[in-house]
Amino acid sequence: MKKLMNGADTLLRESLEGFAAAHAGLVRVAFEPTYVARADAPVSGKVGLVSGGGAGHEPLHAGFVGYGMLDAACPGQVFTSPTPDQMLAAAQAVDSGAGVLFIVKNYAGDLMNFEMAAEMAAEIPGGSAMVLVNDDVAVENSTYTQGRRGVAGTVVVEKILGAAAEGGMALAACKALGERVVRATGSMGVALSSCTVPAAGKPTFTLAEDEMEMGVGIHGEPGRRRVKLATTDAIAEEMLGAIAQSLSPQRGQPALLLVNGFGGTPLMELYAMHRAAARQLEAKGVKLARSLVGNWTTSLEMAGCSLTVTLMDDELLRLWDAPVETAALRWGR
Amino acid sequence: MKKLMNGADTLLRESLEGFAAAHAGLVRVAFEPTYVARADAPVSGKVGLVSGGGAGHEPLHAGFVGYGMLDAACPGQVFTSPTPDQMLAAAQAVDSGAGVLFIVKNYAGDLMNFEMAAEMAAEIPGGSAMVLVNDDVAVENSTYTQGRRGVAGTVVVEKILGAAAEGGMALAACKALGERVVRATGSMGVALSSCTVPAAGKPTFTLAEDEMEMGVGIHGEPGRRRVKLATTDAIAEEMLGAIAQSLSPQRGQPALLLVNGFGGTPLMELYAMHRAAARQLEAKGVKLARSLVGNWTTSLEMAGCSLTVTLMDDELLRLWDAPVETAALRWGR
Repeated sequence: MKKLMNGADTLLRESLEGFAAAHAGLVRVAFEPTYVARADAPVSGKVGLVSGGGAGHEPLHAGFVGYGMLDAACPGQVFTSPTPDQMLAAAQAVDSGAGVLFIVKNYAGDLMNFEMAAEMAAEIPGGSAMVLVNDDVAVENSTYTQGRRGVAGTVVVEKILGAAAEGGMALAACKALGERVVRATGSMGVALSSCTVPAAGKPTFTLAEDEMEMGVGIHGEPGRRRVKLATTDAIAEEMLGAIAQSLSPQRGQPALLLVNGFGGTPLMELYAMHRAAARQLEAKGVKLARSLVGNWTTSLEMAGCSLTVTLMDDELLRLWDAPVETAALRWGR
Repeated sequence: MKKLMNGADTLLRESLEGFAAAHAGLVRVAFEPTYVARADAPVSGKVGLVSGGGAGHEPLHAGFVGYGMLDAACPGQVFTSPTPDQMLAAAQAVDSGAGVLFIVKNYAGDLMNFEMAAEMAAEIPGGSAMVLVNDDVAVENSTYTQGRRGVAGTVVVEKILGAAAEGGMALAACKALGERVVRATGSMGVALSSCTVPAAGKPTFTLAEDEMEMGVGIHGEPGRRRVKLATTDAIAEEMLGAIAQSLSPQRGQPALLLVNGFGGTPLMELYAMHRAAARQLEAKGVKLARSLVGNWTTSLEMAGCSLTVTLMDDELLRLWDAPVETAALRWGR
């Protein structure tokens, strides 16, 4: 195993210290319990958006903390849920009295801990609520999941909710909007190689030189099937077929297309995948309205990518386009 | 070899078609000859900034085309210089009468072709000039280079010159400024794995499981030496030692620190490298004034990273902070 690190046990902390120094005006990082919060939190009158999950998916979630997106993020160790006390500390740090919304990817550990944090957060004046993201259409249950997994669609949920909360939307409406975005979002991934968890020291799984894992999860969980490496066009066709089956888009409906690299795939290949996916969308009568291409929800250095489609309407387009200023995503302020 | 592609021969074109569709409001892409230009080019009265080089380093250069940075970029095939006719077509497309500045990474093929393009550009009304970037302090001559190689410091040169040109700086002053930034910039890289050029189909070089290439080039060219894999702290110390020796910073001088991933290294590890590098800067009495961390000048899916330091002053800080709106880099507009 090759990693740029001083040691597996200090990597997360050192990474967060670097993140804090690199984005000093934007965020502050607290340790023990560990969370990343907006430098200007709590923002008066605003619902606090708190997400989190295991590290190793960067820039998710800490890279999306800032104006117009998350108020705080709680990183656990690599591929390990953060603890309820982290989530509670983050919620207390960003609560302005308008309440806190937890945005949770659907994994058993994350869900259990966020639910516990929500109970502990009972004393938060504005109350708390939760949105569960389960956008991965590949499999119904998985290694760490009851129901569908939460994957790269989380970025879309966080961006749209971030804009809504910034605009003054109340807690109950934020929760309803988040659940609407989740229902409008489907994702599916493919792996060409495994990743290696630093503390484990060896690849999570192995693939032969001519194989890929279709429908892989963002921790290297098994997908639908292991098959021969296919072309970009064939991969896009299968993934968008599964997503469209789940979302049932109407003809002419505008969509956001997110091409997400898992960490080890060159941007050149991701843009070629965008071309293939956009053509598949068009063939299904869906209008490519917005695009995001890059490494947004990674699996350490895994090679491969996922496609995410969110069916949009005027409100969602306006919220997607609204200004955002985070370490990883910035536009239009 | 595993690549997400339909074929090595169509990958670049398909990637550019995806790029054009994903960033339709920002850029337009021309083919045969191939270049990427700002959607609003030529911009009246503004010096046109044109860069280019082999593909495989994305987001460099096309990802930096837009407001406040490049006017056009010419991609060659992977790790292969673009041709003079591409550069000329790009220059003609963005020339507003104020002249064109070519920003060239120091590789023999790129330099020869950009010099030829500059000769062919004699009829451009405002004339043309060139800035040669040679920031890599690792080695003096290399596989494809007389003198030092041009690497990730190119991003800093393009950002600062982009802001200057956007602000109305004339061609000769832009050239002088660019050369000043090049003199104030030093970089060095390390590889933990090779990359694989799609058309070659096999890794450019091989490293044992416990080895790294210290001072590697962005095409996998040999560096200073092949040594045992070291810790992040030790790597940062050696790389910043070499950079500081080249730049001779004054005590208290502000610096920009760019931690650049080569494509296959997780963001977590890059931020931990930022922490280590920032501490080394501090130990040398240099003030960390600005930071940029991510995959900006890649070598396909190579694992590893480079550090770039630019010694800043008030003018350079102002130009660095100026608004930019490109596919890869956006802030503050």
